[in-house]
Amino acid sequence: MIIAYDGTHYCGWQIQPNGITIQSVIQDALKVLIRESISLIGSGRTDSGVHAYGQVANFKTTQTLNLYKLHHGLNALLPDDIQIKSLTEIDSSFHSQHSATGKIYHYHLWLDPVQSPFLKKYRLYIRHPLNLNDLKAASEQFLGTHDFTSFANEAHKGTASHDPIRTIQRIDIIPQEGGVRIEFEGNGFLYKMVRNMVGIMLETAEGKRRPQDIAKILQAKDRKCAGKAAPPQGLFLVEVKY
Amino acid sequence: MIIAYDGTHYCGWQIQPNGITIQSVIQDALKVLIRESISLIGSGRTDSGVHAYGQVANFKTTQTLNLYKLHHGLNALLPDDIQIKSLTEIDSSFHSQHSATGKIYHYHLWLDPVQSPFLKKYRLYIRHPLNLNDLKAASEQFLGTHDFTSFANEAHKGTASHDPIRTIQRIDIIPQEGGVRIEFEGNGFLYKMVRNMVGIMLETAEGKRRPQDIAKILQAKDRKCAGKAAPPQGLFLVEVKY
Repeated sequence: MIIAYDGTHYCGWQIQPNGITIQSVIQDALKVLIRESISLIGSGRTDSGVHAYGQVANFKTTQTLNLYKLHHGLNALLPDDIQIKSLTEIDSSFHSQHSATGKIYHYHLWLDPVQSPFLKKYRLYIRHPLNLNDLKAASEQFLGTHDFTSFANEAHKGTASHDPIRTIQRIDIIPQEGGVRIEFEGNGFLYKMVRNMVGIMLETAEGKRRPQDIAKILQAKDRKCAGKAAPPQGLFLVEVKY
Repeated sequence: MIIAYDGTHYCGWQIQPNGITIQSVIQDALKVLIRESISLIGSGRTDSGVHAYGQVANFKTTQTLNLYKLHHGLNALLPDDIQIKSLTEIDSSFHSQHSATGKIYHYHLWLDPVQSPFLKKYRLYIRHPLNLNDLKAASEQFLGTHDFTSFANEAHKGTASHDPIRTIQRIDIIPQEGGVRIEFEGNGFLYKMVRNMVGIMLETAEGKRRPQDIAKILQAKDRKCAGKAAPPQGLFLVEVKY
């Protein structure tokens, strides 16, 4: 299934003991409709407050399901801020996380001193002048294959540790109403990696760092060398590639 | 001043004894900042739940104001869903309503069976198939100069009655994410006129009326001949022309 959600009111994607998550809300709706407790496998977690146009998740069942009825039944049961965009049967070898070959994230910056009454939940509002050339120069430091340890927060306990090598094919800065969006495309992203990259790109665009500092931070392989993560509300998981 | 607002949580533009309105919230903020009770003149009312990108309002004062400070002070005091886009001094003969020579409204339809988790407050979700050719044919019946009595609700008591003749220069149906928006441009619109026109355009596009019925309804000059108004959440006042 491909899922769109407004993450504002959820404690992220991944199920957890305290707090409502996207995964738990969809699993509960599935349980009502197919009378089976399934475990939904997401392409990856999104943090509290992060949004998605194209999160992907799969589950396995031995039941024969009417997918059209299930799709529309799920959307009728789900709250307005979570909707299933499509639901299809797929080969049993498919795994939303392990089969993924790439992801696209967008991070939206609002640069106009006048905020939007409509987009506040979906934009980071920038209060200081940004040098967009420096933002671009900073972004270019991330392109290619690197050890991204300095830009990865520790995952929660119990999560298997990952290889920190990732390849970023594309970072584009696209003008749009009220500001810009930064489009990231890579073969995968570590925990909080996009928000950590945006955080340091913003520090660079505000003149607090030089673009070439980023190469040194990557080499240090130490999370403490990079700055603060950018807040979640500007971030959208747009597409997962397989 | 040019004002953008999300009308979801307000009882429309115009001040009233019961319920919070956009006008009252802005007047209250102005009173805090300039220590003067002013009466804000809007370009026209918008109903409960209707949004605006470009409502225009003016007020008169004998004070000399620092407009930059007032603009940003207002936006700091105003709630997130009302923001002043610009604030300028203008000739004292200017009147937001009487000086207006035209208005642009957009009405947004969501046609995809899967709703958007982000846009629900700003779209009318259409559950039945629409014939977009009939929607277009219906829209063409409104073009030009007509007596729009059949498409005007009675204004509230105490409001001066208006000449019901209006000219619509343009109605465009523009494809966009998830559906279409209907753009209306005219020299002015009567109370609830856009929502009443959209209501009957939708009935036509659902096959319940023929496009040519609209000419007869216009000729009847009787509000009872036209159908129900479309709901407010799809409607935006986009621009007021002077």
